Amino acid sequence: MEKGRLEAFSDGVIAIIITIMVLELKVPHGADLAALRPLLPVLLSYLLSFVYVGIYWNNHHHLFQAATRVNATILWANLHLLFWLSLIPFVTGWTGENHFEALPTALYGLVLFLSSMAYWLLQCAIISEHGHDSKIADALGPDWKGKLSPMLYLTAVGLSFVKEWLADAVYVLVALMWFIPDRRLARVVVEGDSAGRRER
Amino acid sequence: MEKGRLEAFSDGVIAIIITIMVLELKVPHGADLAALRPLLPVLLSYLLSFVYVGIYWNNHHHLFQAATRVNATILWANLHLLFWLSLIPFVTGWTGENHFEALPTALYGLVLFLSSMAYWLLQCAIISEHGHDSKIADALGPDWKGKLSPMLYLTAVGLSFVKEWLADAVYVLVALMWFIPDRRLARVVVEGDSAGRRER
Amino acid sequence: MEKGRLEAFSDGVIAIIITIMVLELKVPHGADLAALRPLLPVLLSYLLSFVYVGIYWNNHHHLFQAATRVNATILWANLHLLFWLSLIPFVTGWTGENHFEALPTALYGLVLFLSSMAYWLLQCAIISEHGHDSKIADALGPDWKGKLSPMLYLTAVGLSFVKEWLADAVYVLVALMWFIPDRRLARVVVEGDSAGRRER
Amino acid sequence: MEKGRLEAFSDGVIAIIITIMVLELKVPHGADLAALRPLLPVLLSYLLSFVYVGIYWNNHHHLFQAATRVNATILWANLHLLFWLSLIPFVTGWTGENHFEALPTALYGLVLFLSSMAYWLLQCAIISEHGHDSKIADALGPDWKGKLSPMLYLTAVGLSFVKEWLADAVYVLVALMWFIPDRRLARVVVEGDSAGRRER
Repeated sequence: MEKGRLEAFSDGVIAIIITIMVLELKVPHGADLAALRPLLPVLLSYLLSFVYVGIYWNNHHHLFQAATRVNATILWANLHLLFWLSLIPFVTGWTGENHFEALPTALYGLVLFLSSMAYWLLQCAIISEHGHDSKIADALGPDWKGKLSPMLYLTAVGLSFVKEWLADAVYVLVALMWFIPDRRLARVVVEGDSAGRRER
Repeated sequence: MEKGRLEAFSDGVIAIIITIMVLELKVPHGADLAALRPLLPVLLSYLLSFVYVGIYWNNHHHLFQAATRVNATILWANLHLLFWLSLIPFVTGWTGENHFEALPTALYGLVLFLSSMAYWLLQCAIISEHGHDSKIADALGPDWKGKLSPMLYLTAVGLSFVKEWLADAVYVLVALMWFIPDRRLARVVVEGDSAGRRER
Repeated sequence: MEKGRLEAFSDGVIAIIITIMVLELKVPHGADLAALRPLLPVLLSYLLSFVYVGIYWNNHHHLFQAATRVNATILWANLHLLFWLSLIPFVTGWTGENHFEALPTALYGLVLFLSSMAYWLLQCAIISEHGHDSKIADALGPDWKGKLSPMLYLTAVGLSFVKEWLADAVYVLVALMWFIPDRRLARVVVEGDSAGRRER
Repeated sequence: MEKGRLEAFSDGVIAIIITIMVLELKVPHGADLAALRPLLPVLLSYLLSFVYVGIYWNNHHHLFQAATRVNATILWANLHLLFWLSLIPFVTGWTGENHFEALPTALYGLVLFLSSMAYWLLQCAIISEHGHDSKIADALGPDWKGKLSPMLYLTAVGLSFVKEWLADAVYVLVALMWFIPDRRLARVVVEGDSAGRRER
């Protein structure tokens, strides 16, 4: 089965997720700075979630560029990932509206945790389709970032109820950690790429 | 006529349908568990509808991967399917907001019934274009799932007015039944695929 | 310049236009038939507009399948068309909410008129790029449907202030007239298609 | 890394941005001209922003048609651009609702300024990937429009607090200046295009 349509559909869903979050930035009635001030936490939540969804899109892009084909399990694993990602606008809006209180912050982390688990399942489904001794399995290797992130998300869920800002710090930290894209996968694509393009 | 743009447009519409449903999960004002509780039925409706739209996308993907060309009738049969699917967010929101009462549940089933009829018409249009003795017609064969589902949806519409939860049980059952993707079509694609890829 | 990205972007915008119209179908609070009744005119407007946007997508699909390349003028003529189409959800919502009163009905016709003018301009830009003696120019020929529709829309705008339902009748009539896709363009694509596919 | 998915994702996001702006045109309750009048400034803001987003889409299209490959830096530079563009619906709604008052007008300019900076960074990332002596770097040449626009946006931000309409005039002016698409890039694509298509 070809991967093109799965990529196109995922692009569509992720593009909508990343864009509807901005609808939480409700147009204020006043036209002065005071009208903008309550929007600041909403904007900050939006920025963080934009980066997270951007990271997922980037990694999804790298992962499927390394993949050569899909099967029914991969289709569903991908939909499962999209389901959790689709809850990000909701938790973003809830965190933003409640100025980063404990429960919304914890739920934010829970959705990030479940998204990371879904991504990990998708990765497993792809490796299983391509074989455990395939280039893509090799390249993912120990995958420490993929293993560390869910643990950090769960830690942040706990921290939300201690000091809420500690949880936020963890979310920012994990985002920074992922900001550096998955060079392992980029390497496979290049090695498997007979066109011999210049890589930096 | 090439099928690429029909697929891209359908991907776009289905991606939006699946994503705007989440907008019914309105951000609550409170920041405690009590504020989340009324959202539980909305989340459950969302989950069920997400799975249904996911099933339609999966089957649509399989169907058009088996198809080799489209005509004007197929374009309209496809738009007709998208019309009924586009009503799913509305009936999902109505069921969710009314904690699964009789009429919303019945209307939910009615929209599922009309969507399944539209899918069946689309399938007929594609078979008619490719010929009744084509591989795709052969592969669809008796299509018992496609014939059983509309009957079950109609049954559920009736059951909504008897015991509402019976109708819900039918919806969950049909979703589970379809969860297993259409292996028949997957088989054609493979047989017609000279690339000789490994299939599991 | 390649036409692929223009098609993809237009597909995206049209998919969103066709889908956000359904957001006007606001989920009612009650769970009985009485709660649904005020939604009937909204649903009818939605259905009509869905068909219109579907017609535009179909014709756009046929037009660009016949086109072989695009230029800067075509990009802007296409954006101009998308601008007027993007106002369809607004006029649809206004007509639906006001149970087909005179002014909303007239504005609906005005937007349809301006969309049809924009489509005509786009067609001119494409013919101008491909040459007046090209196959595509030949095939469009007298284009009586493209010339008749704007006149009928303007008539309907006038009729809105006499008997509102007469304008609605015209809108339904024009939709039916366009329902039959543009066989002229389909023919060019086939003639220009060396693959010798079976055409019906 | 292939550029196709970056283009598809950007098309999706830009298509949504351009379309959700129309949601600010809220359906009025009345059915007379008086009900429409307050929507006029909203419509004008929408038109201006539609043109701006259209310009960004056009230039993005030209830029990536000239590019042959992407890297991780380009992916993030592109997401960065999409972030600022995604704020355009918000500032458009705020300007429209407040009938072009000083602060909303200034913020509108600020978002345009930051978008133009993000576009410039994206351009730099692409040139850096393709080499400073590549055709694409040559073709962009002095890029006076790209250098002038941010300065004009900043001027408009200042002018907002003097005479608000002066800032609006600058926004309209810059839009007109960009309306003429980037012929430099169009030229590279043609020169690099061995198909020898007729160019006008």
